Amino acid sequence: EEVAKLLKLKAKLSDNESATPQKFTLKTPKGTRDYNPDQMSLRLSVLNKVIEVFKKHGADTIDTPVFELKEVLTGKYGEDSKLIYDLKDQGGEILSMRYDLTVPLARYIAMNKVSSIKRYHIAKVYRRDNPAMTKGRYREFYQCDFDIAGTYDPMLPDAECVKVVSEILSSLNIGDFVVKLNHRKLLDGMFEACDVPQDKFRTICSAVDKLDKVSWADVKKEMIDEKGLDEKSADKIGEYVRLSGGEELVEKLLNDEKLKNVKSAVQGLEDMKLLLKYCNIFGIKNQVRFDLSLARGLDYYTGVIYEAVLLGDEKDRKKGEETIGSVAGGGRYDNLVGMFDTKGKQVPCVGVSIGVERVFAILESKNAASKTKIRSSEIQVYVASAHKGLQEKRLELLSKLWDGGIKAEHSYKSNPKLLVQLQYCEEQQIPFALVLGDSELERGIVKFRDVLTRKEQELPIDNLVEAIKWNLSNKGY
Amino acid sequence: EEVAKLLKLKAKLSDNESATPQKFTLKTPKGTRDYNPDQMSLRLSVLNKVIEVFKKHGADTIDTPVFELKEVLTGKYGEDSKLIYDLKDQGGEILSMRYDLTVPLARYIAMNKVSSIKRYHIAKVYRRDNPAMTKGRYREFYQCDFDIAGTYDPMLPDAECVKVVSEILSSLNIGDFVVKLNHRKLLDGMFEACDVPQDKFRTICSAVDKLDKVSWADVKKEMIDEKGLDEKSADKIGEYVRLSGGEELVEKLLNDEKLKNVKSAVQGLEDMKLLLKYCNIFGIKNQVRFDLSLARGLDYYTGVIYEAVLLGDEKDRKKGEETIGSVAGGGRYDNLVGMFDTKGKQVPCVGVSIGVERVFAILESKNAASKTKIRSSEIQVYVASAHKGLQEKRLELLSKLWDGGIKAEHSYKSNPKLLVQLQYCEEQQIPFALVLGDSELERGIVKFRDVLTRKEQELPIDNLVEAIKWNLSNKGY
Repeated sequence: EEVAKLLKLKAKLSDNESATPQKFTLKTPKGTRDYNPDQMSLRLSVLNKVIEVFKKHGADTIDTPVFELKEVLTGKYGEDSKLIYDLKDQGGEILSMRYDLTVPLARYIAMNKVSSIKRYHIAKVYRRDNPAMTKGRYREFYQCDFDIAGTYDPMLPDAECVKVVSEILSSLNIGDFVVKLNHRKLLDGMFEACDVPQDKFRTICSAVDKLDKVSWADVKKEMIDEKGLDEKSADKIGEYVRLSGGEELVEKLLNDEKLKNVKSAVQGLEDMKLLLKYCNIFGIKNQVRFDLSLARGLDYYTGVIYEAVLLGDEKDRKKGEETIGSVAGGGRYDNLVGMFDTKGKQVPCVGVSIGVERVFAILESKNAASKTKIRSSEIQVYVASAHKGLQEKRLELLSKLWDGGIKAEHSYKSNPKLLVQLQYCEEQQIPFALVLGDSELERGIVKFRDVLTRKEQELPIDNLVEAIKWNLSNKGY
Repeated sequence: EEVAKLLKLKAKLSDNESATPQKFTLKTPKGTRDYNPDQMSLRLSVLNKVIEVFKKHGADTIDTPVFELKEVLTGKYGEDSKLIYDLKDQGGEILSMRYDLTVPLARYIAMNKVSSIKRYHIAKVYRRDNPAMTKGRYREFYQCDFDIAGTYDPMLPDAECVKVVSEILSSLNIGDFVVKLNHRKLLDGMFEACDVPQDKFRTICSAVDKLDKVSWADVKKEMIDEKGLDEKSADKIGEYVRLSGGEELVEKLLNDEKLKNVKSAVQGLEDMKLLLKYCNIFGIKNQVRFDLSLARGLDYYTGVIYEAVLLGDEKDRKKGEETIGSVAGGGRYDNLVGMFDTKGKQVPCVGVSIGVERVFAILESKNAASKTKIRSSEIQVYVASAHKGLQEKRLELLSKLWDGGIKAEHSYKSNPKLLVQLQYCEEQQIPFALVLGDSELERGIVKFRDVLTRKEQELPIDNLVEAIKWNLSNKGY
């Protein structure tokens, strides 16, 4: 009881202290960032392009809470589960921040008994990872997902996802890319053919997943030393994961002595064959590559897996660093919804996630290099006064413009200087200024100034909104 | 140590269990909800209207993390601080979910040494409140804020905020509304004039804030019984808080025997006079009301405060229930940024928050009542096949449409029935179908069908995208 009293007292004290100016370092939480208006402009223009493609493919959008019951996330992310943010138990449910948008989608589908949906979802997700903010890797970051759920004929939704990725990356103007393709069943079949014990499939798969970052020698070492695989198996895996190609590689592997006798390998290869055919029809043959080293870490994939990587420029490629990073990824996950359904009812799903944070980082550094100035505000007309005493008239005309749907601004000073007002327009790249002066007002007109050319014309106050709109549309605003 | 071992074992066990199908009740966390595609369509159309108004007034947008260092939020929300969601301490910083978008804005301004900004921010905020989901009150909900920060002449940004609220509520078509106006300095002056002890100002202010929900008798009881105010003071307050009106009430109070001798009351009244004048110029005289019962609970307000309420229909008003709920609120907070600045440097701010969740709830029930069917997808053309064996041709034409920027969809079945495909178009309100058939394909054409009228015309495959686009724009799509 005494302790409780003391705690109460302490709480009171800290409440009082808190009203004084800050003593702690002012920052955002580790691995997070603010976006300023310029960054937001860039981001929104990227997201609008992405959404345009999603809509072109008929996707709806949904939204889910930023946190879920912890139980919803448990057991879905394998070794990465330790990166989940938990909320404090404040005497209610045990909650965790969403780790991706895929598990919440599966929970949504199961909970609402949805049998089919094509949806996009753009929202933030949370991972207590080691942030590398210069590379665009954050603890709070946007995911931008497109998924097709429903029971359909093989590879049709899967191929559309690849097409969507291709359309998006082409529209973003971030350079050449390739979408690597592989199949979880082929990986499993390959592990089986290489005599990996069944209970090691997932962990060996995680090791293979690191091949885009570390050498085969390191991955092999991890397999043997950390994961207890025997060297012979590892070497066999090593031969396969170095292979990549197109339809001819599928044919070759279908005739591979070891693989052709493993059922899941053959299933995976048949799927790949169909997928490559559809990609061909979709005109993206040169943008995809069947790559046996692609594994993807997440536990829930069951079929096709994708990863799109940018191909840097010629110079980088010669140095042997072929790719400069993943910008999209995804795959098929047919069993995830069933994990949430009380009767285990499955809804097969396939989807892709666009790595928009990486895209933002690339475009930001491009803009910085070319010194592109982004205009974040859309103001069309600035209402200025040529001399003192015009404030009320200025407010009256400003209000007319707003009511007429014109994007307009003024100075928040009662009597601003004309020069200051016009300089503001130039700095802010506002195209037009309406300049009020007593002598013009007496004649029932105001000056309409083109800020860039400094040319002025007279507009009648009686018909001001229409006259301005006519001018704006005439000059392409 | 033994305990640690046991805990580890337990963790392992629960990890294994988690891979089996769910046993817990599938739900979203208390007070949160999913938005399905129809709800999202409605929501996005509301938000787009709101953003249009924000942009008309020249606002940029920024984004901040969904959580902040707990210290950032501490001491900003008075009695409501208990509603803050905390994150679990997982061996890093102590974090809390944002409670509003105002404190993060102030943190952003101080941290980035911003001297002026006009920004809007639409994002989710979190409060561990008692949810009342039928009334649109959630624990996770969207806020939609517009704020003007910077040192400007009196009441100019303040009046613009009221204008913004008026434009938004008018554009949303949710019925008549009034924006109640009051001033923190006037409230403080009023408390002083009523002999409230200075250290009780904030808590008495919180009590006044409840007047829109409970009767004066209850509020008076709270002031006396819970907050220890003497009855005489309470009665004096009761006389003032029943007053509301326009410019004439300001004049009356400027001559009030008790108030005219209290400095802060006079300051508040002078501000109100100017604000009402500007509202008059902005053409919104009939949409605002000076109301002394308006208090607003948050600690950080220092000047003008606003609250917009819907006025229900005639019938409701006759029953004495004048208002059916708050749909926007805000005010001036000149000292908040200084709380974050190491040198206490102030940046005066004023802003308003649109209660979009309430708006969603109102429009959803309106739509439900009128049985309005919202179309969530924007597909323009469905690519169908008249008979079997056309799958590859279908994919080829579909791909052409996508590459040409046409929003198009097809069946994910290899050989779907024509009737099923056309029914889908009707259900989904897709305006046009492209129907492939062998005999037409041989002639180099496809049928283009108006789904509603069922009229068909022939389009040349060679020039398909252009022909479809011409038809779409011709028919207003």
